[in-house]
Amino acid sequence: MMRTGNSTLIFDRGVKITHTANIVGTKEGNGPLADTFDIIADDDYFGQKTWEQAESEMQDRCIERLHAKAGTQSSNTDLLFSGDLVNQCAASCNPAQSAARAHLGLFGACSTMAESLLCAAAFVNAGYADRAIALTSSHFSTAERQFRFPLAYGSQRPPTAQWTVTGAGAAMVERGSGAGVYITHAYIGLPLDMGITDANNMGAAMAPAAAQTIKGFLRDTNTAPDDYDLILTGDLGKEGTKLLYTLLNDEGISIESVHNDCGIMIYDIDRQDAHAGASGCGCSAAVLTGKILSDMRGGRYHRVLFAGTGALMNSTTVQQGLPIVGVTHLIELEVRV
Amino acid sequence: MMRTGNSTLIFDRGVKITHTANIVGTKEGNGPLADTFDIIADDDYFGQKTWEQAESEMQDRCIERLHAKAGTQSSNTDLLFSGDLVNQCAASCNPAQSAARAHLGLFGACSTMAESLLCAAAFVNAGYADRAIALTSSHFSTAERQFRFPLAYGSQRPPTAQWTVTGAGAAMVERGSGAGVYITHAYIGLPLDMGITDANNMGAAMAPAAAQTIKGFLRDTNTAPDDYDLILTGDLGKEGTKLLYTLLNDEGISIESVHNDCGIMIYDIDRQDAHAGASGCGCSAAVLTGKILSDMRGGRYHRVLFAGTGALMNSTTVQQGLPIVGVTHLIELEVRV
Repeated sequence: MMRTGNSTLIFDRGVKITHTANIVGTKEGNGPLADTFDIIADDDYFGQKTWEQAESEMQDRCIERLHAKAGTQSSNTDLLFSGDLVNQCAASCNPAQSAARAHLGLFGACSTMAESLLCAAAFVNAGYADRAIALTSSHFSTAERQFRFPLAYGSQRPPTAQWTVTGAGAAMVERGSGAGVYITHAYIGLPLDMGITDANNMGAAMAPAAAQTIKGFLRDTNTAPDDYDLILTGDLGKEGTKLLYTLLNDEGISIESVHNDCGIMIYDIDRQDAHAGASGCGCSAAVLTGKILSDMRGGRYHRVLFAGTGALMNSTTVQQGLPIVGVTHLIELEVRV
Repeated sequence: MMRTGNSTLIFDRGVKITHTANIVGTKEGNGPLADTFDIIADDDYFGQKTWEQAESEMQDRCIERLHAKAGTQSSNTDLLFSGDLVNQCAASCNPAQSAARAHLGLFGACSTMAESLLCAAAFVNAGYADRAIALTSSHFSTAERQFRFPLAYGSQRPPTAQWTVTGAGAAMVERGSGAGVYITHAYIGLPLDMGITDANNMGAAMAPAAAQTIKGFLRDTNTAPDDYDLILTGDLGKEGTKLLYTLLNDEGISIESVHNDCGIMIYDIDRQDAHAGASGCGCSAAVLTGKILSDMRGGRYHRVLFAGTGALMNSTTVQQGLPIVGVTHLIELEVRV
């Protein structure tokens, strides 16, 4: 039995996250989660000449650290799933060459960490790969100039704007048994267009898709929010989180007491002037592979839902006034002792 | 046994391509494969206001036709895998809502049709989905202005340039038995950087990755080119095809007698002024779902390798002089009677 309900996959053969690594920029290194990151940059160029090369360099260093922690090499790692926010996932192409023996590129905007983890788990559970890596990144400076305005304009950011995280996170996914953190289920989302057109309010674009996915997963698995120690959304930020609560409350679902959001956690929002919070593929990648998995290994959480939220758009479609479509993919994580 | 060799997946539970649909623009409709397309545009805007909306509209109509042919609906189709060349796969987001109950976005540049087919086959073979769709598109006018120059400049194209196909193709992938076209194996490629930096010579960027994947698959499966009736590459065009032959000949592999390339087939190259041939996700999608699968069903080919070739780059990285990385994913198709 590999599925239940409408869109929930079951990974019943023991799929574990065995190792994780992450890397972040200077702003993230000055935030409240600094202790949970493996590498913190001195300089957001990471020794490179351009922002795009800097983002690739982050992925390279993150993979290098992951292989070092795991005692593995690219030659004995079957498959890498990765993606990013740069046009044509350009930050992911070069680093992929030195990560594994094969690579599949994904695009799910800021939901890509959940998408890459669910694909890695699906391939490992089915036996297509023994060892797979899920990896995503984002960089404030590649994203901001691409999606909104050239950085040098110094444009004013509205209160609903989110700050794209400079960071990357990677997880090693393998078949295993015994103690550890397992990926037990996944829910694959569907894009949802609610007519949002403001590129500075991505929380509003993503919240309806997050509500749809969380509701769908709870229904498919016949569970309730208090069956989980934590329901973690990717990067809805403060605005999107409020909307998510409202939308779920309308359906009679209350997650407030077990919910947190990577986009709220990674910065000290007021002190670090992050407006509505953080966003970017690297946000949930760095928070999940750092703080959350560390807390799971430490016994704080046993059963966690991670719902990666993405806003699907590009600068051309935004300028054309076309809607920003939201999507949310979800995985269930469980600690076995 | 789900794998053999380094990177070859085995689909042993009967994974069939049960239905296909495609749609193309006016130039493709004037080419030699016109009879093999389901829908040919009167107008490359497909009734929309912008090129980006036109590309989404192509995907919508392609999916609508696929469901009509298959007698299916989005509500009984588990999963869509899709992608395109528009920044952030923006052409794929809206159409995904009406194609299936769940969606995973992929990015593999022009290799995406092979990537989406291999992912669909992997998920169906493993039991994660009963019915999945693989879909990709490209549009000359969204791609050209994004990757090279604004169309209105009327820039001169060098002889190595390829013409991005306006088109989309979709395939329904389901578990089955009896007569039909089966996806029996897949080989997942690895990005390969050979230092190519010319955005008008993508054949050169893709050919080394195609050689690497074809060689790897033949080695993994212990087969030779003449075990296949056709080895079909995605869109190497004339330049890339010559390079592929040279690279494989250097390895003692000769595919010339069984090889063809979607980028060479779709246009009457000289008459239609297509320079080195065609490219774009929609090229191999339309040729495979039209001409090739029709010839397989008609008995002309029994065993076919389809190697989707992609050039991974964006306009920023090209302007920065960064390399265009090639990637090639492959599937094996077999007719059972």
